[in-house]
Formats: sequence, C-alpha cells, structure tokens
Amino acid sequence: MSGVRLTAEEVRDVWAILGPQERVAAFQQMERSEADDFFLGLSASEQATLLVALSNGERRLWLRLLAPDDAADVIQQVPEPQRHEFLDMLDEPTRREVSALMAYAEDAAGGLMSPRFARLRPEMSVNEAIRYLERQAQERLETLYYAYVLDRDQKLRGVVSFRDLFAALGAKPIGEVMHKNVVSVPETMDQEAVARVIAQHDLHAIPVVDEEGRMKGIVTVDDIVDVVEREATEDIQKLGGMEALDTPYMQTSMRAMVKKRAGWLSALFLGEMLTASAMSHYEDEIARAVVLALFVPLIISSGGNSGSQATTLIIRAMALGEVTVKDWWRIVRRELTAGVSLGIILAALGLVRILVWQALFHTYGEHYVKVAVTVAVSLVGVVTWGTIAGSMLPFAIRRLGFDPASASAPFVATLVDVSGLVIYFNVAHVLLRGSLL
Amino acid sequence: MSGVRLTAEEVRDVWAILGPQERVAAFQQMERSEADDFFLGLSASEQATLLVALSNGERRLWLRLLAPDDAADVIQQVPEPQRHEFLDMLDEPTRREVSALMAYAEDAAGGLMSPRFARLRPEMSVNEAIRYLERQAQERLETLYYAYVLDRDQKLRGVVSFRDLFAALGAKPIGEVMHKNVVSVPETMDQEAVARVIAQHDLHAIPVVDEEGRMKGIVTVDDIVDVVEREATEDIQKLGGMEALDTPYMQTSMRAMVKKRAGWLSALFLGEMLTASAMSHYEDEIARAVVLALFVPLIISSGGNSGSQATTLIIRAMALGEVTVKDWWRIVRRELTAGVSLGIILAALGLVRILVWQALFHTYGEHYVKVAVTVAVSLVGVVTWGTIAGSMLPFAIRRLGFDPASASAPFVATLVDVSGLVIYFNVAHVLLRGSLL
Repeated sequence: MSGVRLTAEEVRDVWAILGPQERVAAFQQMERSEADDFFLGLSASEQATLLVALSNGERRLWLRLLAPDDAADVIQQVPEPQRHEFLDMLDEPTRREVSALMAYAEDAAGGLMSPRFARLRPEMSVNEAIRYLERQAQERLETLYYAYVLDRDQKLRGVVSFRDLFAALGAKPIGEVMHKNVVSVPETMDQEAVARVIAQHDLHAIPVVDEEGRMKGIVTVDDIVDVVEREATEDIQKLGGMEALDTPYMQTSMRAMVKKRAGWLSALFLGEMLTASAMSHYEDEIARAVVLALFVPLIISSGGNSGSQATTLIIRAMALGEVTVKDWWRIVRRELTAGVSLGIILAALGLVRILVWQALFHTYGEHYVKVAVTVAVSLVGVVTWGTIAGSMLPFAIRRLGFDPASASAPFVATLVDVSGLVIYFNVAHVLLRGSLL
Repeated sequence: MSGVRLTAEEVRDVWAILGPQERVAAFQQMERSEADDFFLGLSASEQATLLVALSNGERRLWLRLLAPDDAADVIQQVPEPQRHEFLDMLDEPTRREVSALMAYAEDAAGGLMSPRFARLRPEMSVNEAIRYLERQAQERLETLYYAYVLDRDQKLRGVVSFRDLFAALGAKPIGEVMHKNVVSVPETMDQEAVARVIAQHDLHAIPVVDEEGRMKGIVTVDDIVDVVEREATEDIQKLGGMEALDTPYMQTSMRAMVKKRAGWLSALFLGEMLTASAMSHYEDEIARAVVLALFVPLIISSGGNSGSQATTLIIRAMALGEVTVKDWWRIVRRELTAGVSLGIILAALGLVRILVWQALFHTYGEHYVKVAVTVAVSLVGVVTWGTIAGSMLPFAIRRLGFDPASASAPFVATLVDVSGLVIYFNVAHVLLRGSLL
C-alpha cells in the first residue's frame, strides 16, 4: 500500500476483498477530500468496523462528520462494550440526539429519522422566515427543501417549501402561506411502510410525529433508497430458500453462509423425506408398473414450478402493498383460473411428448395411451393444486405471524412434491386399474 | 359514486379493483386539492389510462400539471396514434423538452432525467446567485437542493448547494465557492447503474451529461426509489420462474398473466422431460431395485434447493454490484466449500433417516446399509453440483447476453434434476453392483 497512492475509486473497487488492517491502510492513504466522500458512502456496518480500527483522534474526527441518524446507525453496529466510548466522543447536543434515536427500533420510522430539520413559526412573516432559514442552513440540516411550521407545543401545523417562500409576498405570515394538509408518519411505523408513503406521495422528505402530534424528525428520500434495496435483498434471499444474509455476499464468512443456508435446506430436506414415505406407500404400484416411476420427477417438478410462480407473485404484491390478507378469496379465484389454464397447457405438451416418443421408440409398452392420459390428468391436477397452494402459502404464513417471504420457491416445491405424488398415484390407481395395475 | 363524497384515501384503497369508467367517476368527484396529490401519486401507466378516459379540457389541465420527465413517461404509455394529440396539449417549451426526453431509452439516465435544474455561471457573485436562484425557484424546478454551474458551452464545471451559498461571503465569485469534483452520469447509463451511483454517494440529485460533458438534466433521488422498487420486482418475478408482469398483480389481465407464466413453465416442462428420458435409461435398475425409485424425489429436490439458494445469492449480489463477472473463479471456490459442507449435512440427515426407518419399520430390505450409503454419497454429489451449477448459471446467462435474473430457482432446479438423476444412478451402479443391481 506504500508508494503509489490509490484513488477513492480504486479503493472502492478492491474494498470488498481487503482485510481489516488493509482497509485502514487504504483509507488512511487517501486524500482528505476524497476520504470524506468515501467514508460517507460506506454502509453503517463498514463505517463501524473502520472506526473501531482507527486511533481515538481519528475516530472522533470521522464520527463527528456523520449526521445524528447515521451516527446512531454506526454506534449500533459497534460491539456493546465500546458503544459508550463512541457516544462520549460526540459533542453534547449531538450525543443527546443520537442517544434518543438509538432508543427506537432500527427498522421503524423513529430509527430512520433525523432530528435536524428546518423549523418555522406560523406567526413569522415570509421575509423573516427566509432570513431565519438562511441562518439555520449553516447548521447541518438534513434537507433544505421543506421547512416545517411548529406551534409552541412542537405540534406540526404545516409545511412550506423554499419555492413557496420565494414565490410569496414578503409581508405575509407563514400561517397563510403554508400547506396545512401535511402527510406525516407515526414514529413507530415500519420502515417499509414509510418507504411506501414517501413513494406514493413523491416526497423528498416526510415528517415523523409522536402520538400527540409533536414533530420528532424527518425521514428523507435518500435514506429510503437504502431501505428499499435492503428489504428487496432480504425478500429475494428468503425467496431463494434461505435466511437473509444481512451482509454483502463476498463479505459473509463461510461459517455464517453455511449456517444461513443449512437451516432451511435441512428443514426442506426433512419435509422432502415425506416423498420417500409417499413413494414407499406406492411401492407395489411402482413394482408392477415401473413406467409410472419414469414420470415422477416431471410431474412433481411441474407442480413445484407453478407453485413457485404463484408464491413469488403474491409475496411481491404483498410487499408492495398491492394485495392484502383480505384479498385472499379473490386471489384464490384468479389463481384457480390461471392454474387450470397452465395445467391444461402442460398436459397437452405431456400428451404429445408421450405419444411421439411411443411412435418413435416404443418406450412405454402396450398401455401407452392410458399412461399418457394418466400423466395428462395428473398434470392438470398437480399444476392447479401447486398454483393454489403457492398463492395461499404466504397468507397462511403471515397468519402464523411470520414473514410471508419465507414462503420460498423451494418451500412451496417441497410442499407440492409430496401432495403431487399422492395426486399422481391416485389418478394412476383409478385410470390404470385392470390394465397396468 | 353519487351522493357520498369519497376522500383521496378511500379512493386509493379501492382503486385497484375499479374499472376504467369507475375510476374516472371516483377521480372527478374528489376535491381539487385532494385530486392534485392523488393524480401525482399514480404510476405513469395509471395516469395515462385516466387521461385517455377524460375529456380534452380536463386532459390538458392534468397533463400540464406534470413535470416534463413525468409527462414523457405518461405519453409513452398512451397508445401510439394518440401520442401526438397529447404532445400538442403542452405549451411550446415543455413540448420541446418532452419530445427530447422521449427520444431516450426509457431505462437510461436520459429517459429518467428532468431538464429543469437550477443553473449558475462561475463568474456570478454569491449574492447575485442567491437572487438569481430565488427568481428561478418560481419556475417548476425539480430540486432546489443543488445549483449547477455551467460555462458558456453548457459544460458542467461545478455544483453548489444552497447551504454553501448561505454560508459563503456575498461578494465571492461562484467559481471559488463551487465544488469542482462533480459526480455525474452519462445520458446512456442504465437506470439501475444510476441508482447505484446515487445511493453510493448519498446524493439528492445527480447531473446527466452528454459525451462532450454538456449538462442535459438531473435525476433526482425520488425517481430512483421507483426505479429500485420496479427493478427488484422484475428480478423477483424472474427468479420465481416467469416473465416480469410490468403491471400490478391485481391489474394484470388473466390473458397476460397466463401468457407470462406459461412461457417459462412450458420451457421448464420441456427441460424436465429429460428426467423421463433419464429415468427410462435406468428402467432396468429400477425394476430390479424399486427401493431406488423411492429416493428419487428426495435427491433431486435437494440438488434443486441448494442450487436455488446459490443462484439467488449470486443474482442479487450481481444486481447490487457486489460481484461482477470477473469474480467467477472466487465464487466457484466459495460455493465449492459451501456445497460440500451442505451436502455432508444433508447426507448425515439422510443416513440417520434411513437407518431409523429400517430399525422401526424394516422398509428397505436386507441391503439397507448399502442403500443408505448410496443415498448419502449421492446427496453430497448432487448438493455440491447443484450449488456450483446454481452459482455459475447467472454468469453463463449474462455471457449469452441475457438478464442473469432469468436463472430462476425453477430453472436451476430443472437443470439439476436431470444431472441429479445421472449422479444418483451412477453412484448406485457402483455401490450396489453385485448386491441389489
């Protein structure tokens, strides 16, 4: 790391693969102007690791660069015994703000907000407000886009944008210029819900109020981008059939990686063992008609795939607030239509496949038509069932109080595999009795 | 809809289930102040549908409420023949801006940007700049947070924030106050990449420049929230084994829904047919040892599940820019370790299961130890192979020029099912020769 100076760009490129000491070295050799930007661009957990490795003097310098909400996030990532030491490095007013923020759940509006917003009084004139804001602007405000109008009890009465102020007559009182219908969120609201409110109203920032309507802070849209990305990552990883990693792929230790994957994989394996039991149950049928065994993977995977589609659609629609639990019956009807249609399409493909193979290779014996019909009928049943089960599983899981995103594609596939076997062998039992069975 | 007045909140709740005419009625009965907010909160495609259903006079009114970048998005959603009619409703300067924006690919920085940003000259004094910005602020600027400093050729020379201006001495020239290291993006950059740059630098807005460095517009962080959510939805739906819907679940027609799902489902079905061929190939082995067939679903699903985990992890890490194609060899090594570990865990579970069942129910015949070992060894092989194949598939697909997110969990499962059978029956062939086979 000595000799040649790396730029922030270059350090960013290799950051993921550097060890803790190398990171400190790479960080310290950057120019101060670049290092600023670089440090602010790191995630809270990366900032925390870096700060822990720095000397006391440097630690104080960088910690004080952070806005109170970001400082709170970083200190929450620091090992418990060191947290007090970190807090003590902040100046007194900031320390009080940060401690207050740390009391909120990290994923609630209160844990995301910044207490540094521009405040006005309704009695002020527009001219006074502009001068007052120019003064406030020299402090580290989180956004200059909106100024919030609070009464003497700190209750939120209205909002004005800079644009409103510049466009209004200088002598008018703020109370007459401000917008009184302010969209706000309670401090306990979940961050995903806050993100939806901000996106829906196309806001740059949203005020957070307590139960009595007193304004506590603002959440800005740039904090929301991170939330949206992080929540999507969590959902995607859960949908892939594992626990969310919480750290970037390359920075996750092998131990944590295997642990987060082995749990669900083992649970699914135990569930899938039921297929061995189901198959045992039909062992005689298989012994008499080995041809039946040939289509087992095809049929159960078709059920699994259609279920995986349905569950993915519903989980994403739930996460975006497009469907709620009370829509379940309308979804059943939609998915029933979709499932039957998809089942018929696959059944037709399956039928053609068996008849063509029989014509070409005589693979399936004298009862090939009955076998083909058994496979086709089973496909309609399994795909329809897979689709319904896949779409309802997220609702069932939410009912039980878990995150619907745990209804992963592999989970649905496992569920449908067992029931798919039962459907298949029962159809075979009815259609092939007297001929093959 | 007559008589009782619905609030914007109430209309929003039922919006998804209203037909086009009901939507118009519900929209028109809202109070104008509420309707404004409501309209701006709709997606571009909902705005377009609504506008098409409104009278000419109303259409003009609402269309003119939109910022040029939003107007361009809406007009792109209007059926081709009507687009000109819509464009003609805009005032002349806006029409020119909108037409220019419509020339960009919708998912590039140029298609996302707004041409309405605050401009300054480097020669201006700070005081002149503040007065000039107050005047510009009365137009519909996209953000007041940053002002961009352009030279006579419209080339981007620097940026100042309002905070900088208020903190600086009034007589200083802007050229001395501005930050010269401006992060900007080219107009052709993909919107996902733009989102990453904004998130990484924690910006409120980012300037878009053409090849010669001339500034064309800004992309603001609130547009990015939508992009991030939409891209995550697309990736999640593709990971679920279907085409991305492009419309909310409840508003997608049954025809479109079945079409978007049937394509991949049929493709996967055709792939999965190879399992029937593979099974046929081992028909003699199955006939001699039916016990082998019992574990087929268990073994192939374990490969599918571990592959689905690996592919999901890699696709998300790619989307977030955490890993790139050049990391493939490091990922192979990581996934090899993870795959073998996971395989050994499942093999141990499988071994215990078979031995316990044998002790309890005598299900698996005299050669049960050999059967158990066959299953365990196959599991290590299949899970390791599933993990490697799942992690490499996104790279292979990107190499072929497709979206890596198409490497869905079902796709990987299908791929691994066939190869899993081959591994299983070959292991059986070696271990059970002379006893069961």
